[in-house]
Amino acid sequence: MFIQSETNRIIKEIRSLDLKKNREKLGLFLLEGERLVGEAEGHIVYTLASESYRGSIEPNHTVSDRLYARLSNTVNPQGILAVCRMPKNEFKAHSKTPLYIFLENIQDPGNMGTIIRTADAAGADGVFLSKGCVDIYNPKTVRSTMGSLFHIPIYRNVDIKELIDNMNVVAIGAHLKGDRTPYSVDMTAGTAIIIGNEANGITEELAEKADILVKIPMPGKAESMNAGIAAAILIYEAVRQRM
Amino acid sequence: MFIQSETNRIIKEIRSLDLKKNREKLGLFLLEGERLVGEAEGHIVYTLASESYRGSIEPNHTVSDRLYARLSNTVNPQGILAVCRMPKNEFKAHSKTPLYIFLENIQDPGNMGTIIRTADAAGADGVFLSKGCVDIYNPKTVRSTMGSLFHIPIYRNVDIKELIDNMNVVAIGAHLKGDRTPYSVDMTAGTAIIIGNEANGITEELAEKADILVKIPMPGKAESMNAGIAAAILIYEAVRQRM
Repeated sequence: MFIQSETNRIIKEIRSLDLKKNREKLGLFLLEGERLVGEAEGHIVYTLASESYRGSIEPNHTVSDRLYARLSNTVNPQGILAVCRMPKNEFKAHSKTPLYIFLENIQDPGNMGTIIRTADAAGADGVFLSKGCVDIYNPKTVRSTMGSLFHIPIYRNVDIKELIDNMNVVAIGAHLKGDRTPYSVDMTAGTAIIIGNEANGITEELAEKADILVKIPMPGKAESMNAGIAAAILIYEAVRQRM
Repeated sequence: MFIQSETNRIIKEIRSLDLKKNREKLGLFLLEGERLVGEAEGHIVYTLASESYRGSIEPNHTVSDRLYARLSNTVNPQGILAVCRMPKNEFKAHSKTPLYIFLENIQDPGNMGTIIRTADAAGADGVFLSKGCVDIYNPKTVRSTMGSLFHIPIYRNVDIKELIDNMNVVAIGAHLKGDRTPYSVDMTAGTAIIIGNEANGITEELAEKADILVKIPMPGKAESMNAGIAAAILIYEAVRQRM
């Protein structure tokens, strides 16, 4: 169907998904680009393409290139977007020695997306987000997950301290005051890796709850590390130990 | 000195540094924010603050908040910027078992900055950039290096194939077709880690030149990895082995 009117219900709905409160209310979010839309099978409510789109996806709706550009959140739009249902992840323990990632107050959308993508690559069993984390359905995070959003269970608005109490895992926090290196910690049993806020790290209350605090060695001159990088180093140390 | 006129020579120079060609011609670039400017000692030509700036740096020049906002590249300017001289890094081999990072055609400014920061944290001996890499003096890269730009030698516009010929290092390329994991490769001798372009990886010619191609294991569903993350996993495997 070719949509011409900017006041069309579909156009209005897509526009409304720019705001988190509308995404939450509707349980919907926006995906853009050939690759991401291709990965979203099973989650798509409808797709919408620009008139000049020549990709392989058969869109439900088409609009003029001009209108498409106004709906798109990307600098070089590929001309295809999808409105998707948020995956519902009900927690189930699948593995006896799971690898979980607990994120506390991660604020940068790019970091969040990259951590989810890395956790997916590593075959982790789930990513758990504290209330203070950035919304994973904002366009920048969705884009930087590169589809991993659909591959790995993500649990939002969790109480990480409660999780540590109730799960049978060794909770390992990345902390500048950690007294061990990640390489001296056994991550082959059930493991949860905890990464804190970009500027402030893990909160004091959560640091006290953690079983082990590790410091990634920094023999050079940098004083700290990007949160996404710290997450990757710990996650892949677990992968290495489990090989 | 309080600068009022937008046509002042200083204001014009700062504005001109938005463009790479002017940065190269003058050998200057822009730094913003209390922390970064604080780290740039020895490289600063002059500093400029907004009228309402109340930080600890004594600026050479002051402008109105309104003019400052127009000079700034950040969303929430801290009111302090510096014009700096590009560090001159003439190559000298310092270590018998150096750890070098070779970057081929890395395009994303954020990835570039994060890799430089990670290499610095790891105490690597230098970062070498092919001609096709993004400019490290663009504001976004400068920001994401968090000062590491001044800590670690960075060599630009190098021919990586030539480096491999002339340096006594094991050149290890991250490659989706790699036949070994990074964990099975000895990185305690002189080592160069090669990371390729975000979308295309290492070029075929360079992959042929590399001594070893490694694939980071991806037991999960993601098909690829962020280039900055791949770099960090390899760099920190070297750190682990060298501890």
